[in-house]
Amino acid sequence: MNTAEKLTALRAEMKKRRLAAYIVPTDDFHGSEYVGDYFKAREYLSGFTGSAGTLLVMPERALLWTDGRYFLQAESQLSGSGIELMKSGQPGVPTLPAYLGEELSQGDVIGFDGRTVTGAFVEELREKTDKKQITFYGKRDLVDLIWEDRPPLSAEPVWELEISYAGLTREDKIQKVREKMEEYGADAFLVTALDEVAWLLNLRGGDVKHTPVFLSYLFLTKRRAILCAQRKAFSEEICRELQRAGVTLLAYESIEEMVSSLPEGHRILVDERKVNYRLLQAVSKGVEKVNRPSPIALMKAVKTPKEIAHIRSAHVKDGVAVTRFLYWLKTHVGKETITEMGAAQKLEEFRAEREGYLEPSFSPIIAYGAHAASPHYEATPETDAVIRPEGLCLADTGGHYSEGTTDITRTIVLGEVTAEEKRAFTLVLKGHLRFGAAKFLEGVCGQNLDILARQPLWENGLDYNHGTGHGVGYLLSVHEGPQNVRWRIGKEMDCVSLEEGMILSNEPGLYMAGKFGIRHENLVLVRKGEKTECGQFMYLEPLTMVPFDKEAIDTTLMTAEELGLLNTYHKKVYETLAPYLAGEELAWLEKATAPLW
Amino acid sequence: MNTAEKLTALRAEMKKRRLAAYIVPTDDFHGSEYVGDYFKAREYLSGFTGSAGTLLVMPERALLWTDGRYFLQAESQLSGSGIELMKSGQPGVPTLPAYLGEELSQGDVIGFDGRTVTGAFVEELREKTDKKQITFYGKRDLVDLIWEDRPPLSAEPVWELEISYAGLTREDKIQKVREKMEEYGADAFLVTALDEVAWLLNLRGGDVKHTPVFLSYLFLTKRRAILCAQRKAFSEEICRELQRAGVTLLAYESIEEMVSSLPEGHRILVDERKVNYRLLQAVSKGVEKVNRPSPIALMKAVKTPKEIAHIRSAHVKDGVAVTRFLYWLKTHVGKETITEMGAAQKLEEFRAEREGYLEPSFSPIIAYGAHAASPHYEATPETDAVIRPEGLCLADTGGHYSEGTTDITRTIVLGEVTAEEKRAFTLVLKGHLRFGAAKFLEGVCGQNLDILARQPLWENGLDYNHGTGHGVGYLLSVHEGPQNVRWRIGKEMDCVSLEEGMILSNEPGLYMAGKFGIRHENLVLVRKGEKTECGQFMYLEPLTMVPFDKEAIDTTLMTAEELGLLNTYHKKVYETLAPYLAGEELAWLEKATAPLW
Repeated sequence: MNTAEKLTALRAEMKKRRLAAYIVPTDDFHGSEYVGDYFKAREYLSGFTGSAGTLLVMPERALLWTDGRYFLQAESQLSGSGIELMKSGQPGVPTLPAYLGEELSQGDVIGFDGRTVTGAFVEELREKTDKKQITFYGKRDLVDLIWEDRPPLSAEPVWELEISYAGLTREDKIQKVREKMEEYGADAFLVTALDEVAWLLNLRGGDVKHTPVFLSYLFLTKRRAILCAQRKAFSEEICRELQRAGVTLLAYESIEEMVSSLPEGHRILVDERKVNYRLLQAVSKGVEKVNRPSPIALMKAVKTPKEIAHIRSAHVKDGVAVTRFLYWLKTHVGKETITEMGAAQKLEEFRAEREGYLEPSFSPIIAYGAHAASPHYEATPETDAVIRPEGLCLADTGGHYSEGTTDITRTIVLGEVTAEEKRAFTLVLKGHLRFGAAKFLEGVCGQNLDILARQPLWENGLDYNHGTGHGVGYLLSVHEGPQNVRWRIGKEMDCVSLEEGMILSNEPGLYMAGKFGIRHENLVLVRKGEKTECGQFMYLEPLTMVPFDKEAIDTTLMTAEELGLLNTYHKKVYETLAPYLAGEELAWLEKATAPLW
Repeated sequence: MNTAEKLTALRAEMKKRRLAAYIVPTDDFHGSEYVGDYFKAREYLSGFTGSAGTLLVMPERALLWTDGRYFLQAESQLSGSGIELMKSGQPGVPTLPAYLGEELSQGDVIGFDGRTVTGAFVEELREKTDKKQITFYGKRDLVDLIWEDRPPLSAEPVWELEISYAGLTREDKIQKVREKMEEYGADAFLVTALDEVAWLLNLRGGDVKHTPVFLSYLFLTKRRAILCAQRKAFSEEICRELQRAGVTLLAYESIEEMVSSLPEGHRILVDERKVNYRLLQAVSKGVEKVNRPSPIALMKAVKTPKEIAHIRSAHVKDGVAVTRFLYWLKTHVGKETITEMGAAQKLEEFRAEREGYLEPSFSPIIAYGAHAASPHYEATPETDAVIRPEGLCLADTGGHYSEGTTDITRTIVLGEVTAEEKRAFTLVLKGHLRFGAAKFLEGVCGQNLDILARQPLWENGLDYNHGTGHGVGYLLSVHEGPQNVRWRIGKEMDCVSLEEGMILSNEPGLYMAGKFGIRHENLVLVRKGEKTECGQFMYLEPLTMVPFDKEAIDTTLMTAEELGLLNTYHKKVYETLAPYLAGEELAWLEKATAPLW
């Protein structure tokens, strides 16, 4: 079927159920950042392959919302499909809920697969459509009825994360979560985020690209722990271990039944920003929902001492791989044909040589020249540029190791760079160094610190349109909360104090459309510093160990203090990596990390 | 009656009404920062005269909660009264609601004058006492029944703030507020904050110390504007003007009736953090409360261009007065006996010489030596210290002028200062200068900027235990919201973007118990700066025009950039004030503002 035929088939199913609109988002049942092939219903219907976008089908029209990263790609892929492109965030473009609020008629019904949208999204829909008495139909996945060759649900083998890596047993973790349930007065807790289930049970899997998790739900009560997952993904041994820890394994689909079986008068903890609509609907009328942030998110964000020791070692390995890549790229560019995708492949090879390396932690961004002006650029065979011996190349990549997850960006000098590029490179570096040197009181949030990274840019009328930092999982998602670093303070309670053991990225940038892009990213660890009469002070320890490219630094723009911070970091990089390098690579590292005055 | 007799009389009234507890706070019916004598029921009962404190009377015990500023004073004033002191914020000391939650029995009744507590406070009480089915009795002011010589309600003459000062007519203001009511879907709006009523109606009064407001409520509907206030405070002319603007004047007490008269099915806008419990109870069951921040607070915070022009001129007058005071103090100290209260009196005289000066905008803080280590120190005849020609004197004072309200702190060198004092003085000044030089994107809140002022201290394990800045009213309260500068991000929506036309104080400090205290405070105006591709940038214009005392600056601790900021400010101070000074005072100003390298 082509797109038109697919839409016709879907509309026939909509008509049978008298639906005025059907929404197809880009989500699995767990709100994952990446989704498996089974869940790519929006891509199947529309032909648009971007990682973010929501399709709305109505009897006469079909529209697709996506964001700035994908305008060009969506225009090209939707061309001739009859699907209209809605450019999210552009002036005059309504959000999908606002559009439906305007377009629908009194008493209309909106359909969607209730497992692919969160309770919070449906709440927003309700607000926008309330005055028209519009109702929702979330019981059926209509795309499934017309999708003949749909890929099966992924069920890759689940594996055990040894206690020597995790630092806490699953029994201990479950106990801690039950204490939080007690504190919230909750009799049950529905865990749907895949990385939360994986963290809690010290298990990993392979059902989601770049994120070693497995499709599952966990239903926790004071006495029972029910894991709803695909039995075939579990070995006998893991099943025994789970049983020993008091965890019962049931079928993936049985979660709805489990939720609805909770008796009246009980209270269930659900984070409505994360839990899907269908499961929220399954909660019985007489059961009270306690809508609070999942306590697992915070526990998972604060790394155990064991995890931290391993993470430091993962960063040494990653530092060796990326440093060798930098040396290779800078010495080979112009002498052989290297494209963005080729360079990414080479970096992957350097990482793969390291013991314990598993896979990339996200799709690598190797962006040459003007390509780097798009912060989320991802090379495709169509765009794959040859890297030439001039200008800058931005490399934002990361890996999963048994010892933890890395995420690093370096902006690499390949030859001649302009004064404008140097100035931009240096201003961003100043912000990176200042944020990295922050000393602050316990209780401070990322929102308090963000300005440290942006100030050198703001002072020059410049800015970057993304956050300064995010949390990073331990062999889980490379992006995790609840902490983050940005300046906008939302109405939701998303300002989380930075606690000892949390990891943050420190990644200011600057993007000049049509010209170049700069980003400098280290991961840092939040640590306790001195305790004085004024309170407990905290600081950030750099985890990433790779030199910044001094060739693009305009030292006249840096203060003596900033140069000192850079030199101290580079000294530590040299001392850390030197034992693992030799010959020309070592000689290069020595030069690359030599002090700058 | 002595305190014991008063408590006995109150307990007799409590017993008649079967009250297990009676709460007497330090508030008028409007949540004002300062209260008139009529409202000093807590002081009358307990003998404790501090500006903050809540008395709890139970059949067998009486307890008074107050904060760290008043521990010593309360201990002394409560001695022998039988009232126990509860030191708020100290480890192991429960809050009043938590204490009641523990101590009371099933089904007990808590009493208070429902006009002296906010809806939010009663909500907190309810949370802590809910499981014991405790109820509230807020209908009667029991203290009034026993207080024989109670001072009358203040009813000072109300006066008109000319349009040439206000910049907007009361009709225009009411119209703007009605637009907001429309936006919130509210049919009525209950305004209880005295500065909000005064601002809206371009009227001022004299019923609250340091705040030229008058006792009143405003009840606004789409068509009507009812002012409930004391008729005798209004001249015939103002009554006519109000009538012309569509404002009806009713008795102060009739507000409850007005509120309760709103018919079922209507929606009333009330800010439950501000409106008193009794009035919230008066809202009929069938009327929906829209609990949102009062829109007047934000309108009032954003000064009109006319107000801004006047405010700049008030600051020039205030700068002349304070500069003359600095010169006088520094040249007279040690030659004649000057006490803290005497110095305050002298500064008041310098201010009183300026045309348009009305009164102090708060009780002056002149704190010599170790006295300044208490940020809120206020000299009394008992503590009034002689200022000697050595060390530092902190002067935090302000005035109301027809042209606006000032608030300034200078820390003054009187002779020899220690290296520790110089270092503290300089670190605080660095923070003051950095915050003052902030350039930031529109949308940024005080919480994003606070770290700029604290960073030089935090880097040295130091801090100050108060906010960095507050809003300032126009001939209203010297402390106003909704914007503020501090780092803690509350759960309530109290993060407000800094908008052009808002005023902030910039007042970092450092307090060394038993030794000295430092604070440097200017008022600044939020202004729009350049607009670039990255957005609208904002900056802060200093309004306060008085030199900082260079004699305590350790220039080795300051960067060239910070010295440049200080020199630029001092140059502007000289240019602004020089036309109004002559002779020795002018010569001194020239020296005091000469560049420092």
